[in-house]
Amino acid sequence: MADTKTPTLRWEGDVGGHLVLVDQTRLPGQMVEINCRTVEDAWLAIKRLEVRGAPAIGCAAGYAVCLAEARLEAVQAACDHLATCRPTAVNLFWALERMKRVAGEAAPDKLAQLLLAEARSIHDEDRELCAAIGRHGADLLADVQVEQGVLTHCNAGALATGGDGTALSVLFELAERGRKVHVWVDETRPLLQGARLTTWELQQRDIDCTLICDSMAAQVMREGRVQAVVTGADRVAANGDVANKIGTYSVATLAKAHGIPFYVAAPTSTFDMTLGSGDEIPIEQRAAEEITQGFGTQTAPDGIATYNPAFDITPAELIVGIVTEHGVIRPVCRETVEGCVG
Amino acid sequence: MADTKTPTLRWEGDVGGHLVLVDQTRLPGQMVEINCRTVEDAWLAIKRLEVRGAPAIGCAAGYAVCLAEARLEAVQAACDHLATCRPTAVNLFWALERMKRVAGEAAPDKLAQLLLAEARSIHDEDRELCAAIGRHGADLLADVQVEQGVLTHCNAGALATGGDGTALSVLFELAERGRKVHVWVDETRPLLQGARLTTWELQQRDIDCTLICDSMAAQVMREGRVQAVVTGADRVAANGDVANKIGTYSVATLAKAHGIPFYVAAPTSTFDMTLGSGDEIPIEQRAAEEITQGFGTQTAPDGIATYNPAFDITPAELIVGIVTEHGVIRPVCRETVEGCVG
Repeated sequence: MADTKTPTLRWEGDVGGHLVLVDQTRLPGQMVEINCRTVEDAWLAIKRLEVRGAPAIGCAAGYAVCLAEARLEAVQAACDHLATCRPTAVNLFWALERMKRVAGEAAPDKLAQLLLAEARSIHDEDRELCAAIGRHGADLLADVQVEQGVLTHCNAGALATGGDGTALSVLFELAERGRKVHVWVDETRPLLQGARLTTWELQQRDIDCTLICDSMAAQVMREGRVQAVVTGADRVAANGDVANKIGTYSVATLAKAHGIPFYVAAPTSTFDMTLGSGDEIPIEQRAAEEITQGFGTQTAPDGIATYNPAFDITPAELIVGIVTEHGVIRPVCRETVEGCVG
Repeated sequence: MADTKTPTLRWEGDVGGHLVLVDQTRLPGQMVEINCRTVEDAWLAIKRLEVRGAPAIGCAAGYAVCLAEARLEAVQAACDHLATCRPTAVNLFWALERMKRVAGEAAPDKLAQLLLAEARSIHDEDRELCAAIGRHGADLLADVQVEQGVLTHCNAGALATGGDGTALSVLFELAERGRKVHVWVDETRPLLQGARLTTWELQQRDIDCTLICDSMAAQVMREGRVQAVVTGADRVAANGDVANKIGTYSVATLAKAHGIPFYVAAPTSTFDMTLGSGDEIPIEQRAAEEITQGFGTQTAPDGIATYNPAFDITPAELIVGIVTEHGVIRPVCRETVEGCVG
């Protein structure tokens, strides 16, 4: 089941092997693989966004636990440590819970083997989830004029998952079905995941796309060139509020103002049913330098204050549907979310 | 009347002198002055955005005409050439019309002297217009909790004018009146005039500000931290539609969705009463590299298509008021615009 197009992450060898990640901070300029041989290596790779995207973080975290010494205490400590690296994507905690449960139940001499099997399951399942999301999303957009334009924000593609992506999986599936698709790609400041990663994935698969600055989305919508918006999610609350890359709420608000349907694509592992609403989702604040020195060039005066939330919350009422591996949640509200995930 | 804080542009010497501009593409890192000694020098400086902002372009164009040979035909040719460097800011054409009229009426031996006097008048008047806009705007915002936050997009400050700015003049005047002002500054991709220029001007005048990416404005509004939005304008149509830096329409739409008043500040020289609506305003399209290599680093794959309009149109219905040197146009519609400008 290897995805040769975008090998976001893989486990090299068997028990005693190591995690290999594509360094996404170097794309699209360079395709560099990072070897994570310790839990700390993996912690740093996730922290630095060398691997990012909620499902991919979950997959990486599973393998990262396999880098710990194969003793219950060491595994638990590794899980606790890995849980500190990023606060918003719930897949991180979900994957660590799965690994902890396996560790708690395993005989000591089977621990290493069972942990690796569980990490591989998380990864394999994610591939399946992505494919199912693609199918449901493509059905959903069957009557949309996707050749005119679908807008996406950030990167919810193969690089964000263990499979073919969430939002982009929908577009890849439409293309597989013979549809001509045109994608408007928000560059997604400050870290430009749209410009660097989404365009790269679309280009690799010969899907037509146009890169714009985030501030241009409204104008493109006004020109009637966007028929639907599809993004991923980092965490979904029980009422359907969605935390996703900063700027998603802006796009959702603009889509509503222009009468354009706004969809989210996410596996049920991204739902956090312990949170009543998006207000309870912790939002990671990141360093000022991402804004003031984003590309190695200082673009603001010394000493200027910044505000740099990595995510924002899109309230359920702005979301026409959430595409999961089980189908489309629509309308998006507590009852329908519980019906799908609960 | 020299503004020692931000000497955006000045004429050095008398007849036979030359135009000196601060190279705004080098700010905030370096304060470098450019000497324009030929019409072509000035044409390039405007084209390359070394001087930018609708009123400042008007002032620069006035002086640029004084760099032509002091013969009627040469002056007319200079005006025609300068009119080609940027299509959207109407102040460019307005200033060139003034220079052409003076040239057409001047005795040949007085031509150089009268042209320089007219260019200086355009510049001096712009200082007065900025000050008047500041006063009217500060009156308008007298009851707004500006200490909580006013959001601005791009740079409509001293660097964009021959005086103290348009949108920023309002904030400077509020500060002069003893109000504590907090400004949310959109960085304004692709060329980052907010990050590079607006923060720099606010810092120079000790006004509190926070720099955000354009995609964060909606979130800051949702958090209740923006009490008003004020931007400049590059051209205003007879019905009150406003062309301004790309992203302005996005901010105006988001402000409306959050119940936040959206204001524009612009002198009447920015109004183009020959255009019935914003749909008739020509929008400059700029090079892809501004998006894909904006920071000296390539941030998108080779060969990716982009869409890069330098401006967008904000329809009059999203604008609560337009602050001019004569007072505030409010509500914004054909009748009130004609009443103020016509």
